[in-house]
Amino acid sequence: MTTEPRDYEIFEIPDFRLEHGATLRPARLAYKTYGTLNADRSNAIVYPTWYSGRHWDNEWLIGPGMALDPERYFIIIPNMFGNGLSSSPSNTPAPYDRGRFPHVTMLDNINAQHTLVTEHLGIERLALVTGWSMGAGQTYQWAVRHPEMVPRAVPFCGSAKTSLHNFVFLEGVKAALTADAEFRGGFYDTPPTKGLRAFARVYAGWGFSQAFYWDETFREMGYSSLEDFLIGFWEGLFIGKDANDLLCMLWTWQQADVGRTPGYDGELRNALSAIRARLCAVPAEKDLYFPPEDEQWSSQFIPGGEVRVIPGTWGHFAGGGANPADTAFIDGVLKEVLAS
Amino acid sequence: MTTEPRDYEIFEIPDFRLEHGATLRPARLAYKTYGTLNADRSNAIVYPTWYSGRHWDNEWLIGPGMALDPERYFIIIPNMFGNGLSSSPSNTPAPYDRGRFPHVTMLDNINAQHTLVTEHLGIERLALVTGWSMGAGQTYQWAVRHPEMVPRAVPFCGSAKTSLHNFVFLEGVKAALTADAEFRGGFYDTPPTKGLRAFARVYAGWGFSQAFYWDETFREMGYSSLEDFLIGFWEGLFIGKDANDLLCMLWTWQQADVGRTPGYDGELRNALSAIRARLCAVPAEKDLYFPPEDEQWSSQFIPGGEVRVIPGTWGHFAGGGANPADTAFIDGVLKEVLAS
Repeated sequence: MTTEPRDYEIFEIPDFRLEHGATLRPARLAYKTYGTLNADRSNAIVYPTWYSGRHWDNEWLIGPGMALDPERYFIIIPNMFGNGLSSSPSNTPAPYDRGRFPHVTMLDNINAQHTLVTEHLGIERLALVTGWSMGAGQTYQWAVRHPEMVPRAVPFCGSAKTSLHNFVFLEGVKAALTADAEFRGGFYDTPPTKGLRAFARVYAGWGFSQAFYWDETFREMGYSSLEDFLIGFWEGLFIGKDANDLLCMLWTWQQADVGRTPGYDGELRNALSAIRARLCAVPAEKDLYFPPEDEQWSSQFIPGGEVRVIPGTWGHFAGGGANPADTAFIDGVLKEVLAS
Repeated sequence: MTTEPRDYEIFEIPDFRLEHGATLRPARLAYKTYGTLNADRSNAIVYPTWYSGRHWDNEWLIGPGMALDPERYFIIIPNMFGNGLSSSPSNTPAPYDRGRFPHVTMLDNINAQHTLVTEHLGIERLALVTGWSMGAGQTYQWAVRHPEMVPRAVPFCGSAKTSLHNFVFLEGVKAALTADAEFRGGFYDTPPTKGLRAFARVYAGWGFSQAFYWDETFREMGYSSLEDFLIGFWEGLFIGKDANDLLCMLWTWQQADVGRTPGYDGELRNALSAIRARLCAVPAEKDLYFPPEDEQWSSQFIPGGEVRVIPGTWGHFAGGGANPADTAFIDGVLKEVLAS
């Protein structure tokens, strides 16, 4: 699509059958690796992306001296379908383009990633899977679908199944975006900017906690006022992104449920029980859409499950890499789990 | 405006100057009373409406044997400006009609209510002011503006000042509504229904707690599915209401701050310190936009301030009258405060 040099790879799967029946011909899985695979292929970490994030948005958790140290580990960041780099509404040719891009599930993502990891990279067992938010959801999906490959898992600020309240939050941002007539059922020629800005403004209430706003912590992030934060951070996060791509990933998110993995027949508890990883869930204390209670509930069914709550006021974005204290907390858990 | 018989009164104030400079000629304050004013005019309770509520939406808290017993008290429910019964964008003639209706503050509402209570009804001192949500905000505004008239106050699920996070939540619903091009800057001939439905769907994430959805408590309310609840309850709550009216009250809500009462120069703490009422704030444990922490903060500056938290999962709608346990809690606090 682009002829510019790029810093990542594209792995193509010729005829990739999606769970809901459509076939991507081919599916394109964009990924980037950091570090070197060791001789016995035992040091690979899979670290999937979050809602609308790209591989470079994950890099804050990788570095010398950190748990995800590329001197020590071979870190693979696969871009989620729909994020604009892997197969997405915005980059897929007709007839599966734009408003016609098919539904993609968490399991579809993990199926493609599994093919990449095993067939293309020749890795049979991972050291760890980790990720933030929808990256956490993919972590759970890896641990359920391929328990023999995943000895360690650290999903942070996410869940094994999207709760009803989380679903409703997503209904709200979706409704705000599609209220803009310029969206035209997904077949716009110019972006539905009013809808995208509304989407961002609704999202703003959810991403950080009430206390974060009370304390005006956005000022520490360099924003001069609330409105500067709403425009500079929130509209800035979404305005350049493709509306169909956002809705594609939103559907993936809403439908996330590892209980739907083949063999579990919708029984979430049974699916969680099948996890063989030491799975340390790391929710944030004041996350408004992935509250710690939900992770506590799931953890009780996971044989090697435990929960560590990130304290503080950053809410969901405790896992976004912008607050050093939260990043240190997550990195600490990762170090502990990797050492075990 | 209407020639149908109505069950409420209209009090007109000929030239009602609003805080922000515009004048309603006249302001129309719709209200209804319950019970009888006693001989020494000492049994009056003011019970203002909430966001988009009308006087009849308040009646669940009034009844024989309840704290607000019309056999004992003279209960006045003034309808908030913008709610479609009192002066509102939807019922005010040009040039102050529709998208040109002026900004109205909490203090404007209380100024009009005060004129009604003192000059029209001849009451010099109230027994109590109480209300839910924006009705709680009006309760605070009464207690700060007329401390000598308000010996008791029970604001439930509200605050003295709209917090930044609450402001952001409202920015979200506003952006969803106005993303609909049919809104036409407030000069629509047919309602912007897509925007109204988006407004409702965003609101749905905020009104009840995460745990309420987790437990599927909406089924106890008679809804057969999540989608039935989103349409039947939430879209039903807002679809018949006027978009400009909703935005008028939303502005009032966003700007609410008793610190802006004349004499306090924006100093919220000083304004709270001036309250002479026994003020028992009743936030709900899991209210997502009026969290108990905010009321705890305010309470420390109120000489007769205290806080009683409604336990449970209903969130903001603990104060909406639909859950008997929460209603009993609020009624209990009202009885205790009225007995003191």
